[in-house]
Amino acid sequence: MLKKCPLVLASALLLATSAQAQNIPKHVAAEATALRDQAMHDTIAFDLVESLSMEVGPRSAGSAGDKAAVAWAVQKLTELGFENVHTEEVDVPHWDRGTLNANIVTPFVRSLVATSLGGSPGTPADGIEAEVVRVESLVGLRALSNDELVGKILYVDHEMQRAKDGGGYSTAGRIRTCAHYIAAERGALATVIRSAGTSEHRVAHTGTMLNKDIPPTIPAIALANADADMLTYQVQSGKPVSMSLLSTAQHRPREKSANVIGEIQGQGDLAHEVVLLAAHLDSWDLGTGAIDDGAGVAIVTAAAKMIMNSGDAPRRTIRVVLFANEEFGLDGAKEYERNHAASIKDHVIGIEADFGAGRVWRFSSQVADDALGLVDEIHALLAPIGLERGNNKAGGGADLSPMRKVGMPVFSITHDGTYYFDYHHTPDDTLDKINRDDLNQSVAAYVTVAFVAANIRDDFGRLQPYTRRERTCSAEDDNWVS
Amino acid sequence: MLKKCPLVLASALLLATSAQAQNIPKHVAAEATALRDQAMHDTIAFDLVESLSMEVGPRSAGSAGDKAAVAWAVQKLTELGFENVHTEEVDVPHWDRGTLNANIVTPFVRSLVATSLGGSPGTPADGIEAEVVRVESLVGLRALSNDELVGKILYVDHEMQRAKDGGGYSTAGRIRTCAHYIAAERGALATVIRSAGTSEHRVAHTGTMLNKDIPPTIPAIALANADADMLTYQVQSGKPVSMSLLSTAQHRPREKSANVIGEIQGQGDLAHEVVLLAAHLDSWDLGTGAIDDGAGVAIVTAAAKMIMNSGDAPRRTIRVVLFANEEFGLDGAKEYERNHAASIKDHVIGIEADFGAGRVWRFSSQVADDALGLVDEIHALLAPIGLERGNNKAGGGADLSPMRKVGMPVFSITHDGTYYFDYHHTPDDTLDKINRDDLNQSVAAYVTVAFVAANIRDDFGRLQPYTRRERTCSAEDDNWVS
Repeated sequence: MLKKCPLVLASALLLATSAQAQNIPKHVAAEATALRDQAMHDTIAFDLVESLSMEVGPRSAGSAGDKAAVAWAVQKLTELGFENVHTEEVDVPHWDRGTLNANIVTPFVRSLVATSLGGSPGTPADGIEAEVVRVESLVGLRALSNDELVGKILYVDHEMQRAKDGGGYSTAGRIRTCAHYIAAERGALATVIRSAGTSEHRVAHTGTMLNKDIPPTIPAIALANADADMLTYQVQSGKPVSMSLLSTAQHRPREKSANVIGEIQGQGDLAHEVVLLAAHLDSWDLGTGAIDDGAGVAIVTAAAKMIMNSGDAPRRTIRVVLFANEEFGLDGAKEYERNHAASIKDHVIGIEADFGAGRVWRFSSQVADDALGLVDEIHALLAPIGLERGNNKAGGGADLSPMRKVGMPVFSITHDGTYYFDYHHTPDDTLDKINRDDLNQSVAAYVTVAFVAANIRDDFGRLQPYTRRERTCSAEDDNWVS
Repeated sequence: MLKKCPLVLASALLLATSAQAQNIPKHVAAEATALRDQAMHDTIAFDLVESLSMEVGPRSAGSAGDKAAVAWAVQKLTELGFENVHTEEVDVPHWDRGTLNANIVTPFVRSLVATSLGGSPGTPADGIEAEVVRVESLVGLRALSNDELVGKILYVDHEMQRAKDGGGYSTAGRIRTCAHYIAAERGALATVIRSAGTSEHRVAHTGTMLNKDIPPTIPAIALANADADMLTYQVQSGKPVSMSLLSTAQHRPREKSANVIGEIQGQGDLAHEVVLLAAHLDSWDLGTGAIDDGAGVAIVTAAAKMIMNSGDAPRRTIRVVLFANEEFGLDGAKEYERNHAASIKDHVIGIEADFGAGRVWRFSSQVADDALGLVDEIHALLAPIGLERGNNKAGGGADLSPMRKVGMPVFSITHDGTYYFDYHHTPDDTLDKINRDDLNQSVAAYVTVAFVAANIRDDFGRLQPYTRRERTCSAEDDNWVS
């Protein structure tokens, strides 16, 4: 249990601590450690992700599932005893995947496992049938002669590799968002990509195709890896390859969704300051959003609930924000930054869980330089459960980016992403992919960090606000490192 | 190279061999060993399964793919230099999977990954919507009270476990073929089963629902494991669960298919005797039939081709038979037995490859008792590549069963089936699941056994012909061990 010490006792404790642990009072470290170890055997997080994925399931922006998820979150946060539970309305797009038929027509007929990319227009009602032009990269695409794509279907055959930090997603994601734009400019009728994922199974990977240039104007689909193999085999036979596509994807009228917020209100002179725990409530529609981002919802909610249960109120307010529509435009995050513009200065730290349910292995930060000693002390509490200390260039997660840009410091508690992109954005994102022990180890890290951040006097400073030029689909931006 | 020794030299060699190796002449063993080792680095088998799965792909009985497969096999066997390449017509059913929509309607709406079982009738045009009754086994199904299924959808939630010998498929397969029969007798509208497979991915497992009792009268579908989890979760919530099904599955007019046959003709006094190498050419329609049974086609064809390339003709004729419609009625095998009834007595051994592309680990037999010493000698040639000696109760494979019943001895060269049922009968049965080294190790075993069987004087005797009572869907037959 957290016991707030009288000042004199706290001072005595501080004197007794080592030089390396001068910022975290001993009793705070002790309580954080106890919560950390308790989390390893808890059931809250799994129960939450089970309920969300099994009872709500798919919940893409604007869908009926999205509305059901908002209602689910309000009910859960209320039942769990959070304070100030409320929604903040967010205007979201509503893209409807419809149905898709994708086939190789010549030389060897084959029905393909494929899915439309988020935001893709449908095909004409009688479909598209055209010859396929294959490239392996955006560089290869740009190297085609100007008329080579006119009336054709572009096929970008880039194979994403597994990596612990998910690093392969950067290139694969850029192909997903930019190939269709470049192809459309050159007169292509449609774009086909090998899935921006690492699954060896017959599931295709969706994800947004939006970029900063123009709205999608030609249909774009992703093939399962085995199906991309089939298409590549046929192209490499040297015979002309043609495909047919028939898609009923379409944009529907915009809908209302909401960020869902619950708090553990702080007590005392720091109560107006906020430790922001974030995840996103929406998911893509193919799976049940168990790992993306049901796991994140469960991890941050469970961490906060454990702090709530641990005794006295924290010094700072712990605010759980479950963001609307991360996947297809980051609308919830942007709306939150607008709604709370005046008080972002009081958000002392933001921590988002949005990289699956693997074991967490790295703790990195983006904080003021003079707070790095404090971050090292927090890391010392995480090292026993297997976390390395990362650098001070943490991104903090997509939903936190609007707040980070105006100065909010962030932590990244990074999950092992080796197999994340086997499941992410595919029908395979289901509850059975979550290991309870790994999930609990993540909760243990989050509860430790959140508890310390909410219960110390020190903070993490502020970041320099910045306005970043948005990356475009021009060649100059291909090697942009964010 | 195989060199046929003059009798006097052969006798001298025999005198020089140990008591344990008296049946296989030394030069035959040496040549078999050389072929075995050569097979480990060959490319024929992979090239064949690549071509069949990539160029023909799905080829269920009666489909256009089935006809393409027959043409492919004739062309390949001819190109490879087989003799007496020909087809033998087989009359086959033509079941059309059509489309399927399967949803949980209450309490929590969910679209399910599911597939119709082979032979299922479709639903009425406006579908079926009804309450779900869940059981875990045929015993549980039989224990329901008589009216409990009237107007309901039966759900059999049996979870198949992985095993090296694929042992779990027996129970799961019996549920697939019998649950719908029992449910229909009791007034159920449809049957839903958890897939008779072990995949953790969002793919459903098809397979025949035919049994010896009555033709299927109600629709039957299988759910992917994750989707079965979803349905089970909802049933276990205690609230009434209802599902909707809409299927356009139907039987079409019967079609003509064919067994495709190629030989390496024997030379000398044993040339009329046959070493039968078998696989099946058809596949289910969801995947591309790479492991079931493209791998088998490749393994037996490659083994025979290696013997063809090795030099002189074998003493016995090596006959490769690629059977029609194993999956949905065993029509090709039955037709072969009828066509060749008079000469089955000259089939000295049958060996089928139809258990995927995993490494082979066991060599078992069903031969006359006085041939067991010879079988042990053959096993001694396989032990160095990792094969255990199995018992003398080998089944030999489904396609060989009609011939086995009239006395043909069989071998089983058993693949590691631990992951076979992750892919088998699912969309995931694609080329990328095949490991070249494992495939070659299988070819090594087949070429060794086939070469020896075709080049020794001894044979494996005959089996007692038998007529087995067909297993029915009655409770007394639930524990039948075949």
